[in-house]
Amino acid sequence: MVIERLPVYLRVLDRLQRDGQSVISSQDLGEELGVTPAQIRKDLSYFGRFGKQGRGYSIQRLIGELRHILGLERRWTMALVGAGQLGRAIASYHGFGPQGFDLAAIFDASPDVVGTTVAGHVVAHVDTMEARLRERPVEIGIVAVPAEHAQAVIDQLVAAGVHAILNYAPRAVQVPAHVRVRQIDPAAALQSMTYYLKGDEPPHGAVR
Amino acid sequence: MVIERLPVYLRVLDRLQRDGQSVISSQDLGEELGVTPAQIRKDLSYFGRFGKQGRGYSIQRLIGELRHILGLERRWTMALVGAGQLGRAIASYHGFGPQGFDLAAIFDASPDVVGTTVAGHVVAHVDTMEARLRERPVEIGIVAVPAEHAQAVIDQLVAAGVHAILNYAPRAVQVPAHVRVRQIDPAAALQSMTYYLKGDEPPHGAVR
Repeated sequence: MVIERLPVYLRVLDRLQRDGQSVISSQDLGEELGVTPAQIRKDLSYFGRFGKQGRGYSIQRLIGELRHILGLERRWTMALVGAGQLGRAIASYHGFGPQGFDLAAIFDASPDVVGTTVAGHVVAHVDTMEARLRERPVEIGIVAVPAEHAQAVIDQLVAAGVHAILNYAPRAVQVPAHVRVRQIDPAAALQSMTYYLKGDEPPHGAVR
Repeated sequence: MVIERLPVYLRVLDRLQRDGQSVISSQDLGEELGVTPAQIRKDLSYFGRFGKQGRGYSIQRLIGELRHILGLERRWTMALVGAGQLGRAIASYHGFGPQGFDLAAIFDASPDVVGTTVAGHVVAHVDTMEARLRERPVEIGIVAVPAEHAQAVIDQLVAAGVHAILNYAPRAVQVPAHVRVRQIDPAAALQSMTYYLKGDEPPHGAVR
């Protein structure tokens, strides 16, 4: 899906801009991304015309357009469910703030962590989540609970009006059609590389 | 890329099997995955014929074939670089072992953590990494260092013979053609959802 590739384009363009570059061809952008220049031109053409034939893309303009397309000209608030070791690492992760994402609340079910302070937030009991989120809504829910609790927690987030879920639990979950889920699944990422490590040639056309 | 979807198929099939289901149609599998049945038939057809027309797929057989295709009939060893809060959460993550991935070594540059024990491993200095990995090779490197150090660490891993990198640093990196990189980039995952949150209809054909 092109929408999932655009944030990656943005990451690369940010780096190029930081390195002082101002223009890039679809050829060079493709090499940076490991994508064909044709795919890049196709992806960007969905959203209008950015580059001039043979002159490449203005990096600054492309960054601005991508941020506009992706809805990154405003900030978004998030609730984190799960304040175990993974949840605490997520709460302290420095990559969200600069990209426009602010953590607003943390929930957990364990009496050991409810009431403690994590990354500046007092952890609230998950049973109070729906009421709290109705009072102070967030746009995004981050789920870092054990796999067996993931579906129930996501159901509660959806009931509380959350329409976007970042799921760290290694479990496929189901949501209504109006809700988006992205899975952070490092084991799945590894499994998509072992295919290559075992030395098979990819079937023709199946992979780039 | 189909190879990146297969682990997700596997995750869903594992859950269905755990729930006691033994056969699934491409229609139902598509609904579970949010993918069209045609896409599923196409993805699986790259690797031979699995299902019988009109009878669906045997879940057990499909799991076995997918594990075979992905190279998951053996175990793989990993070295983790970065033993800060994120690295420690990764080292303690329970999702790797059951999927066949074993952590073999942890490296860091900080005198505060080198020599300490994290998830059963004594953290070694990153300056000793290349020599240690030449002596006891691993197949996979996990990078959980600050963004500005990611490229240098990945260069060292590649020099030490590692051909697959799981990069948690929010930075696009470059590797030789024979090396695979997967990025764990939660901010990019969020950015691919804000597009929908801001309420635009996706351009026709660009997204499912």
